[in-house]
Order: sequence, then structure tokens, then C-alpha cells
Amino acid sequence: MELTQAQAREIEEARAQPHPTLRATVPAMEALLYRPIPVLDHGFVRVVDYMGDDAAVVQAARVSYGRGTKRVQDDEGLIRYLMRHWHTTPFEMAEIKLHVKLPIFVARQWIRHRTASVNEYSARYSVLDREFYIPSPEHLAQQSATNRQGRGAALTPEHAEAVLRLLREDAARCYDHYLWLLNETEEATPLDPDRPGLARELARMNLTLNVYTQWYWKTNLHNLMHFLRLRADAHAQYEIRAYAEAILGVLDAWVPITARAFRDYRLSAVTFSAPMLACLKRMLAGEVVTAETSGLSRREWKEFRAALGLPA
Amino acid sequence: MELTQAQAREIEEARAQPHPTLRATVPAMEALLYRPIPVLDHGFVRVVDYMGDDAAVVQAARVSYGRGTKRVQDDEGLIRYLMRHWHTTPFEMAEIKLHVKLPIFVARQWIRHRTASVNEYSARYSVLDREFYIPSPEHLAQQSATNRQGRGAALTPEHAEAVLRLLREDAARCYDHYLWLLNETEEATPLDPDRPGLARELARMNLTLNVYTQWYWKTNLHNLMHFLRLRADAHAQYEIRAYAEAILGVLDAWVPITARAFRDYRLSAVTFSAPMLACLKRMLAGEVVTAETSGLSRREWKEFRAALGLPA
Amino acid sequence: MELTQAQAREIEEARAQPHPTLRATVPAMEALLYRPIPVLDHGFVRVVDYMGDDAAVVQAARVSYGRGTKRVQDDEGLIRYLMRHWHTTPFEMAEIKLHVKLPIFVARQWIRHRTASVNEYSARYSVLDREFYIPSPEHLAQQSATNRQGRGAALTPEHAEAVLRLLREDAARCYDHYLWLLNETEEATPLDPDRPGLARELARMNLTLNVYTQWYWKTNLHNLMHFLRLRADAHAQYEIRAYAEAILGVLDAWVPITARAFRDYRLSAVTFSAPMLACLKRMLAGEVVTAETSGLSRREWKEFRAALGLPA
Amino acid sequence: MELTQAQAREIEEARAQPHPTLRATVPAMEALLYRPIPVLDHGFVRVVDYMGDDAAVVQAARVSYGRGTKRVQDDEGLIRYLMRHWHTTPFEMAEIKLHVKLPIFVARQWIRHRTASVNEYSARYSVLDREFYIPSPEHLAQQSATNRQGRGAALTPEHAEAVLRLLREDAARCYDHYLWLLNETEEATPLDPDRPGLARELARMNLTLNVYTQWYWKTNLHNLMHFLRLRADAHAQYEIRAYAEAILGVLDAWVPITARAFRDYRLSAVTFSAPMLACLKRMLAGEVVTAETSGLSRREWKEFRAALGLPA
Repeated sequence: MELTQAQAREIEEARAQPHPTLRATVPAMEALLYRPIPVLDHGFVRVVDYMGDDAAVVQAARVSYGRGTKRVQDDEGLIRYLMRHWHTTPFEMAEIKLHVKLPIFVARQWIRHRTASVNEYSARYSVLDREFYIPSPEHLAQQSATNRQGRGAALTPEHAEAVLRLLREDAARCYDHYLWLLNETEEATPLDPDRPGLARELARMNLTLNVYTQWYWKTNLHNLMHFLRLRADAHAQYEIRAYAEAILGVLDAWVPITARAFRDYRLSAVTFSAPMLACLKRMLAGEVVTAETSGLSRREWKEFRAALGLPA
Repeated sequence: MELTQAQAREIEEARAQPHPTLRATVPAMEALLYRPIPVLDHGFVRVVDYMGDDAAVVQAARVSYGRGTKRVQDDEGLIRYLMRHWHTTPFEMAEIKLHVKLPIFVARQWIRHRTASVNEYSARYSVLDREFYIPSPEHLAQQSATNRQGRGAALTPEHAEAVLRLLREDAARCYDHYLWLLNETEEATPLDPDRPGLARELARMNLTLNVYTQWYWKTNLHNLMHFLRLRADAHAQYEIRAYAEAILGVLDAWVPITARAFRDYRLSAVTFSAPMLACLKRMLAGEVVTAETSGLSRREWKEFRAALGLPA
Repeated sequence: MELTQAQAREIEEARAQPHPTLRATVPAMEALLYRPIPVLDHGFVRVVDYMGDDAAVVQAARVSYGRGTKRVQDDEGLIRYLMRHWHTTPFEMAEIKLHVKLPIFVARQWIRHRTASVNEYSARYSVLDREFYIPSPEHLAQQSATNRQGRGAALTPEHAEAVLRLLREDAARCYDHYLWLLNETEEATPLDPDRPGLARELARMNLTLNVYTQWYWKTNLHNLMHFLRLRADAHAQYEIRAYAEAILGVLDAWVPITARAFRDYRLSAVTFSAPMLACLKRMLAGEVVTAETSGLSRREWKEFRAALGLPA
Repeated sequence: MELTQAQAREIEEARAQPHPTLRATVPAMEALLYRPIPVLDHGFVRVVDYMGDDAAVVQAARVSYGRGTKRVQDDEGLIRYLMRHWHTTPFEMAEIKLHVKLPIFVARQWIRHRTASVNEYSARYSVLDREFYIPSPEHLAQQSATNRQGRGAALTPEHAEAVLRLLREDAARCYDHYLWLLNETEEATPLDPDRPGLARELARMNLTLNVYTQWYWKTNLHNLMHFLRLRADAHAQYEIRAYAEAILGVLDAWVPITARAFRDYRLSAVTFSAPMLACLKRMLAGEVVTAETSGLSRREWKEFRAALGLPA
């Protein structure tokens, strides 16, 4: 990921001048503010603003006049209780705003999370940068044989090289043609003064789905954790998981108590269905339960064993 | 509106200690932070936190790396353009959190605005304060004869006095009985040690709808303006309008450019339907249009004349 | 719960005339349509409309051209898979519309579920009926000593009688005064022709929170189940749970396969946190784990034992 | 737009068997159900289900027990009143579900309307069809010189031909390579048995933005009209407007009274800001107002004149 000089300067200017505020402030977030955290080959996540901290969650849960409890320990107990019992509204009381640069096919997964505010860079209005996501070879994997929406073994180096060459060439050619259609250089000067440029809103359709776009994305802490639970999960596609993991790091900096509770009660938690729970009770009572005697479907039995770290 | 000493102290403690921040900061909002703005007889609105300013709207609309345009004048032009053309997403990029004390019947109107986060003081969990809204005599009005959901002329002083006495007595008696049911004083000591208190979640049903409740309410600038457009309107019930007007003052302090555009393009704007627009064009061409020749229903004709400041 | 003759007639008229449709149709729901299911002393739930069925969930998950899979068994497998893995969007593709009559204090809990459409009977515009919720004696319980938002032991019969008398008298007196303020009988004729009625939007503030209101409430199957998960739970207040249980019966009639999956994977499922899961693995390996060696807080240890049906 | 035989058969099967229902039914919608309405070169909109009709809006506004008012004329007056005064909740009480086939770059605009439910065909899970949008020559236009996000004059036939050739070739080549990466024919048999296929979730990134995707999209009448107001507008990109216009036809069939009110009070209505309204009053009083004396910005003055059908 590289910034232009103008971008780097804008960021440093935004960081140059602290202001006094009476609002809740998190030093670890101040250290992060505005600076891009690199993700994939050309993407990033930047924290642009934040509202609230761990104490703000407590303060809202208590509808208090001041800054929550006196002791951090009490805050932690309450936050863990709220998390465990799905009292979600206090977590809506903290808010974060990110600037994200990401490939279009990742943006299309991301946008399915509807309870957020989004301002995307407009390719109707402006020209997209010449940047496309090309996976690193170790992330090229064959279609999974067991999971229709997953990856299997890695490709051989020769095969990977052939795939990457093709991805690179198609993206580059489509982007070159996009510029030809626009009849603009990347510096917005006409290539051919005798030919009008095609409307931007039309020319963009010639781009491939790995071209990078960018947006401002703002959501509250509750919805952010919901996003992370689904997208930092091992079943999420690697490319969006890379963003989720970068944001998990932001979460740790922003609301460390909430982040710990989130890991314990959401990210690393396991839900057992009523039939699974019945098996569990029998097993704890000393019975040897098998796939056949479990009453579970084959698929559930496998998931059940995996959750307990037992061999299938 | 009166705060307890403990509440006043909590507020002053929250205001005591400024912290440096690199985030967008609005001095006029810092001056307001945490301090209650009185509304009605016992209610208030307090700004608890805010995120963003006018420049944040511009910054999001541009998906920029830094702090928006260089010149305030350019920001204003863009903000007015966005407002006029209903480009609403950049206004979602600023956020505000309020602590509000309000009568329950007002809370029931307010909560119909769903795109906000709310944490209400729980009467299942805690005991409500002995505070109920009693209108001032000049706000007591008879049922409107022309508008089924409006007020007509003021009551006579004697009539008003009778109404107020009844409101006061019923609210007080119901509240006293609420405490008797709970078997707790307001200081949470038992009144009668030989009798268990009724569950709080049950006792509360004996309260009247003018009892005050309170909540934390957080919403973005776009939804806040939508709330204000409906609730600062002359057709809104006076009691919720009083809150909307207090919040309008906060809007002016927070995002003065957006607030001006909001007043021009929303609050004081008028929408003419296709048939009204047809009348308007005929009138501008010099034709005398009457209710009969207008093609409008009687009701629309009246609304049309009123919008233009013409006699019905 | 009693309907007026006019209401009963309206319902029978709506049920009189079947129309042919090509849409998904559920005979068990047709049998329920429009008829009130009684809840509490004067409340009800009525199914006013529905869209989709179990097959509609499958159809959406597959983005298919026709009616989903050929075999019911395949539908069931897919629906259970979607439920287990939190693939929630296909469940948003079925919709239900209910007419509900409920006490105001229940309505205030209910409305916190924001992802639904609501049209409430307007007490600004109309006069509310003389109906208030008075609990039956067995539901009168003292404040729980262990759970600040729960109920403990039932009251003694004498105590209960005193409580009920008070609730009845306060609600009745407040309602009578409401009519006096309005200066309307329940049949909307003036009581006293020489005195104007107080505006309805003001008079309503004299009512108690157990007065019944009513609304149309429309939500999708996903959000309905979310509502049921929280409100049919043993920790929900009895009065709203009574509504949730009535609606659970509707769910069984409407989408029987989804309803079974919902009970197995949501309603009767248990989530174990990472620390709980660690205990579980140790116990399954034969270790005797105690509160002290568990690494759980006292509260979590209690919850953990309860989930497994083990003595605290 | 062409359906496969299997798809056509599925649609006819779904249409073959009417069922009796007591729900609100709209014969004009029954005639439309399941049948694709062609849009662009390969796209379509199909009505998959609907809930409610014009009377359902009235019924919800009145919170009535039966089917709304007795007379259609009364329904129309109320619906127009609700529309004019932005009483939007009754319009949320009707719901529609569509199956849409559309180019990805159109889908990306569409999805910005967040208050809807969506199930998109998954290119992680399945292989996309070989269908891409190629504009017809008359829709190829140069970049507008005055509106950065609009189209100007049409291209010359020779220029258009060159553009179309390039769009066709790039889309076809990228799609061919997509199949090569997958190592599957469109019939899902391996092309080359000695080479594993690339994971679908990766291969899709090589597709261009004009490839067709499809989804189930469900929304309520209020949000549908909001979508139509923005997307059937002259400033919307032609390609999404084509879908909006097809759906406008569905709206006319479904809720004819609401559709008329929507056209009068939304689609063809004009909003005048406070400064514009001041000009209007002066003009009606006989004053000649010019750009200079108007107090409007140049841009607003132009918009003002245009709204009144007056020369700039």
C-alpha cells in the first residue's frame, strides 16, 4: 500500500494539531488516528473518528449523569454481564468511522451488513486508481471438495504462476481500456483531443472485480462486533477476513474490556443446540455416545465433535 | 428542572478535565457538554458526546484523506448542494448522543423514530423519581374543532385550574400508591418491614403517563434532522416540540452550516404537488386561478394558498 | 377479551370471501386469519396477513425460479443448516402482520424491537377504550431478592387482594377523569355542553400505564424469531411473555419446519463462552472441575452448571 | 432476455395451481406473478410475492378490525392525505418481493438502499452465467461537460461501434478466463482433468462489472417508493432507471391509488427552499425578479427557473 505525497501530507496535517476536548478520549486510538493500517496488497483501514470508550458503554447501561462506575473492575463485570446476556443496546452507544480501501468483490460482501453508514468513492463522478488486488501465491487455492463455498489445497507453484499472470493481464488490459474509453490519463488530461470521452458511469463497467474502491464506513460498536463475528470467522473468505483482523486490532485498542468479553462470549464461544446439549449431558453422566446413538444428523455430529475438540 | 447534588457533582467532574484529541472538535459543543438544557417543568436535554462537524460531512462526501476543502465557503456550497438534492449519506457521518429526561407520553411519540440507539432508565430494575409533567396553564387548550389531532383555544383560567388540580392529584396519588406497592421510600428503605414489596416490573403499571422517564439517545445527523423536521413542526404536539426546539439550538452550535441549509431546504421549504405546480405556472402567467378552476381538492387548495401566504 | 358486535362482524366479513391466488398459501394460517387469540385479560393477537412459507425461505436461499426443492426433506435439511450457521437473510423473505391489543407498559418494552413497522392507535386523534390490565392474583409476586429485574414468591391472598383493589381503583379513577377532561362519553357525546373538552393529546397523560392500546405490527420472520428469542425467554416479564407464547403458536402454524429449527437452535440452545468450553473439555476428559478450579466468575459458574442441568 | 427451458417450466408450474386465500388479493398482480418483465439486454424483474393492497394502507392507518373504509373514494382521500403529509408508516404495511437479474455495477448502486432484504446468487458457491450487459448504441454517450456524474451527447456511430467491440471483447475474454480458472464448463464438467479448479470465491474476481448477477429483493411499499423516487428520476443513471421504470409499472398494477398519489406528491412534485419561496411570492405580487435580485446562488436560480418551466 502506497500513499501519494499529497495524501501523506493531508494525513500528517490532520494529525498535527491536537485540540482540548471534554469528551471521552482513548489515547491508544489517538495514536492510530488517520494512519492507514495496510491490508492485502493495496488496501488499508484508517480510523477517521471514534465516539466513546468502555466507560461509555457502562454509562449508557446505567443512564448515569457522570462517567460510569468509579472502579474499572466494576465496569468489567458489567460489560461481561451485558455481553453474556445479549443486552446489546449499551454497545450501540459507541461509534467508529473508518476509511477503507478494498477490492470491489470484497466491498460487495461487506455492504451486506446494512446497519452502517457508507460513503463510497464514486466512479460515476471520478476516475478510479490503477490498483487491483492480485493474491499472493500462498492464498491461491483450489475449490474445496467438501465445502462448496471454501478453499482446498494450495495450487502448485507453476499453476499459481499461470493464474496470477492471467489475473494481472486481464485486470491491466481492462483498466487500460477503461482509460481509453474515458479518454483521460490518470492525470485527467485527454489522450486524444479529437475524440470525446465516454461517460464515466459507463466506462467503469469495463473494470474487473478486483479493482480497488474506497469508502468511509461508520457503524456502532454493537454492529461492528456483529461484523467481526461473521468476518473474522474461519469460514469467511480470506480477503475480507484480512480486513476483519485489522479491525480486531483496532477494537483491542479502542475498548479493551469489551474486546476481551467479545472474544470470550462471541468469537470463541460455541452454541450447542437442544439435541447437542442432550448428548453432552449423557456424556458428562459417563455414557459413551456415538454418531448412531446421538440423534444428530451426520453433519451436526461432526460439528459437535469439532466444537469439543474431539476426533470426528 | 433540578439536579440532586450528586448529579450536579458528577456533571462538574465530567467537565473538569479536558483531554487532547486529534479528532474534529467543536468549541461551541464543548461549552454545552454534559450541562442540562431545561425543557418543560422537569425535563432536560444534555449533550453527552458528539462525533464530527460540518467539515466531516464534506470529508465523507469527498472520501478524502484529510479534512475536506481548504475554504469554508466551498464547504458551504457543497453542504447546501447535498441538502438540496437529498444526498443524505454524508450527513450520516456525524453522530450525537443526548441524555434526555421526558414525560412517558412524549417518550412514546419520540421512540417511533426507529433509526436511533436508545438506553432507557429501567423501571423493572430501578424506582422512578417522583416527577410528573404538569402543563403550565397557557398550554392547556381545548380539542381543536377542525383538526382532530390538534389544540384549539386556551381554556378559561377557572377551567384550567380545575384541570391542573385533577392532573396533579391523580399523578401524585398514583405515585404514592406506586411507592406503597414497592414498599420502598424514595431512598429505598422499606416502609413496612412486615410486608414484602411488589415486584418493580409490576408496580410501575400504576403510574400515569406524565411521569418522567429518561434515556440516552444517540443518532446520526441525518436522522436527527429528520426527527427535527417532524417534531419542530407547527403540527407536532407542543410537548415534544419543546424538546425539538432545544435540540435545534444544539444543531446550530454543532454544525452551523448544515443547520442553515436545513432551515432553508427542509424546515422552511415547501413542496408543491404536480397539480399545485400546474396552478402556480398558470398564476405566474397572469391567470386568475380559483378553488373551482384549480383542479385541487378543497383541502389542498387551502394548503396551497397557505404555503404562498395568500388568503384562503 | 371481548369484541364489540361491530368488530366481530368486521372480522367475519373479512373471513367470508376467499379469493384465488398463485402466491404461497398456508392452510393453517388461513384458519387463523383475522381471529383474535386472547392474551392477558383484555388483550389479543390477530394475524392480519402473511407472506411466504417454509418453501419461500428455501427459494430465496437458492435464488431459484420456482418453488424451491422438490422434496420436503431437502427443505428441512437446508433450513436447519441456515439456522445453525446464522445465515439469516433467507428468513427475512417471509413476512407477517399482526394486530395486537396490549397494555401500554408492555407496548413500551415491545417497541424496543426497532426492525418492524408499527401503526399504533392514536390517542391524539381518538379516545382510548376503558380497558386496563389487572393481573390475576397468581401473577402478583414480590420483588426478587436475587434478580433486580425479576419476581420472587407470590403474595399472600390478602396482600394480593389489597394490591388488586388499589390497581383497579387508580386505573378506574384516572380513566374516569380522562373522560371528564375530554368531556366526552365513551360514545363521544359531550357530558357537559357548557364546557369545552380538553385536547385529546393532553387528556391522555392522565391515564395509567396499564391501559390497553393497540397496533398493527409487521415484521419479517428473522426479526420475529429474534423477538421471540428474547421475549419467550424465562427472564422476560410475564406479561410480554404471554404475547410471545401466543405468537410462538402462530409460528408453528405458519412455518412448521423453521419453527422446529428455531426451537432446537435458538430457544433451547445454550452458548458456552471460551472459558466455559475449556471447563467442559476438562470435565469430558474425566477431571473434576470445581468453582475454584474453573476459572469462571461465581456468576458464570452458576450459569454454567444450570445450563448443564447440574446442581450449583 | 431468455430463460432456459427448465426455468420457464418452473415458472409455469408455479403459476399452474391457484389456492384459495382470505388475504387481500390484487388480480392485476396475480396476472404478473412469477413472469419476468425484461429490462436491458439480459435482465428482468419478476414479482415473486406481495402482501397487501391500497386498502391495507387504509386499514393500518385506522388500526381497524376489518378491511378499511366502505367506499373507495374515502380510501383515496385518506391515502392522498397520508402521502402529502409524510405519514409514512401506513405505507410500510404493504410488502413486495422481486426476483431481479441485473449487471453488477447496477447492483452496486441498488444495494445502497439499505432498508430491504436481499438474497443474492452466490458466486462463492455457484458459477455465474455467461451474460454481460452491452449497451445499445443509442445509450452510449460522452461524459457530460456540465454535470460530472452525467451523460452528454451520443457518440458517433463509428465511435460507438469501437466502444461496443471493446466492451464485448473484454467481457468475453474475462469470462472465458474465469471458466478456465474454475476449470469447469458452464455445465460444470472439468475442462482439464489434470488440473484442479481455482476456488470459485477467487476466480470471480476476474469478471467485469457488467456481468449479470441476480437476487431476491424484498421491501415495503414506503421504501419501494423511496427507491423509485431516487432511481426513476431523470438524474439517475439510465441503466438503473430502466429497472425503476419497470417497477413503476408494477406499482401501478399493485396499488393504483397509492401510485397516483406517489406520482402527484413525490415523483412530479417540486420542493422550494425558503429563499425560492420568497422569490415566488414576489413574482406572484407582480415584481420582476432577476438572478441578481433573487438572492439565490446561480445554481439555485437555474434550478428554480427550471422547476417553474421558465427559461433560464
